[in-house]
Amino acid sequence: MNIVAAPIAESPFAPAVAWMPPARTPRRRELTIGVIGPGRVGGALLEQLRAAQPRLERAMGLVLRLRGIVASRQMWLDSDDPELNARQDGAQTWRPNDLDGFAAHVRCDNARHALLVDCSASEEVASRYPGWLAAGIHVVTPNKLAGSGPLARWQAIHAACGGGNARFRQEATVCAGLPVLQTLRDLLDTGDELIDIEGMFSGTLAWLCNRHDGRQPFSALLREALALGYTEPDPRADLSGTDVARKLVILAREAGLALSLEDVLVESLVPPTLSELPLEACMERLHELDAPLAAKLAEARAGGGVLRHVGRLDRDGRTSVRLKVLPPGHAFAHTRLTDNVVQFHTARYRDNPLQVQGPGAGPAVTAAGVFADLLRIAEALEARP
Amino acid sequence: MNIVAAPIAESPFAPAVAWMPPARTPRRRELTIGVIGPGRVGGALLEQLRAAQPRLERAMGLVLRLRGIVASRQMWLDSDDPELNARQDGAQTWRPNDLDGFAAHVRCDNARHALLVDCSASEEVASRYPGWLAAGIHVVTPNKLAGSGPLARWQAIHAACGGGNARFRQEATVCAGLPVLQTLRDLLDTGDELIDIEGMFSGTLAWLCNRHDGRQPFSALLREALALGYTEPDPRADLSGTDVARKLVILAREAGLALSLEDVLVESLVPPTLSELPLEACMERLHELDAPLAAKLAEARAGGGVLRHVGRLDRDGRTSVRLKVLPPGHAFAHTRLTDNVVQFHTARYRDNPLQVQGPGAGPAVTAAGVFADLLRIAEALEARP
Repeated sequence: MNIVAAPIAESPFAPAVAWMPPARTPRRRELTIGVIGPGRVGGALLEQLRAAQPRLERAMGLVLRLRGIVASRQMWLDSDDPELNARQDGAQTWRPNDLDGFAAHVRCDNARHALLVDCSASEEVASRYPGWLAAGIHVVTPNKLAGSGPLARWQAIHAACGGGNARFRQEATVCAGLPVLQTLRDLLDTGDELIDIEGMFSGTLAWLCNRHDGRQPFSALLREALALGYTEPDPRADLSGTDVARKLVILAREAGLALSLEDVLVESLVPPTLSELPLEACMERLHELDAPLAAKLAEARAGGGVLRHVGRLDRDGRTSVRLKVLPPGHAFAHTRLTDNVVQFHTARYRDNPLQVQGPGAGPAVTAAGVFADLLRIAEALEARP
Repeated sequence: MNIVAAPIAESPFAPAVAWMPPARTPRRRELTIGVIGPGRVGGALLEQLRAAQPRLERAMGLVLRLRGIVASRQMWLDSDDPELNARQDGAQTWRPNDLDGFAAHVRCDNARHALLVDCSASEEVASRYPGWLAAGIHVVTPNKLAGSGPLARWQAIHAACGGGNARFRQEATVCAGLPVLQTLRDLLDTGDELIDIEGMFSGTLAWLCNRHDGRQPFSALLREALALGYTEPDPRADLSGTDVARKLVILAREAGLALSLEDVLVESLVPPTLSELPLEACMERLHELDAPLAAKLAEARAGGGVLRHVGRLDRDGRTSVRLKVLPPGHAFAHTRLTDNVVQFHTARYRDNPLQVQGPGAGPAVTAAGVFADLLRIAEALEARP
């Protein structure tokens, strides 16, 4: 009994008023940020950070301090001394692009509170992550190259985070702002067991499959998608399924599976006759897509089903990306035109999966996914008294 | 120039090897936990915590230390001294239920790292949250009473968290383990603007609406749902819509709206003639539900639509819970039998909403929602060097 008597005798709970602390403002936290790649997503993020700053400081005591931006050729660096900045008109110093110098500047004297956002699509930047993380700089990115690139680099990133000083987050690499990677992590961290993850990870192909009803040839829909800006400039980048395969690799690795892009079974929609052509020549021969896709559609309809572009990953690391015939009652048969949708089948969600759905592309929602990662890291910052 | 020359000259990034820290194991974090209400959800949580502990310590350096459990009449308290526990056979000391004494014991000497999980459905426990939070103890709960109870208590909870020392999380109060509140918070924290939230928040009513096709009277389906354990022992608790209204209030408050249960427009499915009867008498007269529900179904079908039980909240705090006629192509028309589904319409998700769907009830998924909240708080713990 005595082992518990003491703390209870000293209970701070009686009387209640005695231990009500004085009202405080939120404890101040600072996060120094450097943004690499101020393109469409990076630009949207900079705008979101700027707009959210007053509210974040008021509500969470969180101060996000932008210390620099790296563009393709130049970078600008800001001083960490507000007065100096004021005197020197913001002290925005342009100099030639130098990634490590940039990281060192953002890191300044306090790595625990420094974060780099990589909004580039650059291998050169991704190759720096392990070093930056090992130096205690957090890294957040919508860039798929690290999560789906060489396994050795991924393992180096993982190892660099092992010390717990720095975090790497990449929510926006899969379905942009939709809560996919965080949901997977929560399922696994709370001890659920993954059975499989299945989804439509390409808004472009979802749109094409939704619209492909036989009234128009597939190539006509593809040209329409291109005109609407739904596809990459070279639509083969979408049709090849590689981008979806990268997302599956990222999901697999987040689930602890040592998977690489080569391990994914991808059925490209690009016929061999078109795959090697220069873009212009390819565009003139898009009609070569029509016959095979019409055949797929006929096959689906013969079985009373619908055609959908599905990526799938199971607990054993088997992954596939392909056109799949689904029953008309399947959830994937009723998505909005360009929606992404992801289903998690787990031990706890065995009969009915946990499903996340919505727009999975676009600068604003992608930047928001990056921003959410940044806030998750900021939540863990030690406050400055 | 000189303002940036210095840090770059002192770059810790050259040579790379110089700043590679030695490989470390994750920094150790400890979270002391007390569980109130070891019922179906509390029991599932205790099991999940026990099962996950080895992996959490290995992967995240996180040690979850269970210091006590409060049941309806008794509580057991454990020592914080492992040796002592070992000598005293776990030192599990039973004593009469005393909430504040329990909190003081769990809090021991380190409030920052103490967390109480309330898996009870007790007003008495919910009324303690503000005091516990003000004392620096984190509170996590699937109990809707605080989030949807008196506004003054909610504001006290909010104020007690204001200092940033303690956190209150209640993800599992809305759709159990589905990522609903976290998703809402991420949308708002990243600066998105809420337009409305619409969903089917009752698996019971989703099942009833899905099955209600006119072939059987509604009361027969209700008896079937009762037999399957889908409804509360008194099915009027589901039919009244109050539970859904509580979820809307919780969502509204998380979105910063000062809403109370009285503000929600709820169309109960329970006819006045049944609402006041004792359960047994009510069960004998369930057939009185059939005519009105058949009429609703006929109305829906006359317009070519389907009948669904929908809860809605808009940015101005207008909230409603009612049977709604939806077009057959609507996402809510194609959910799996007992699924919950939540749609967020925001400035960024204006045309196509962000949608989360899946089972929204059950001990395992509810406990997992509590566990995820607990891990989110643990992520923010300062490590012990």
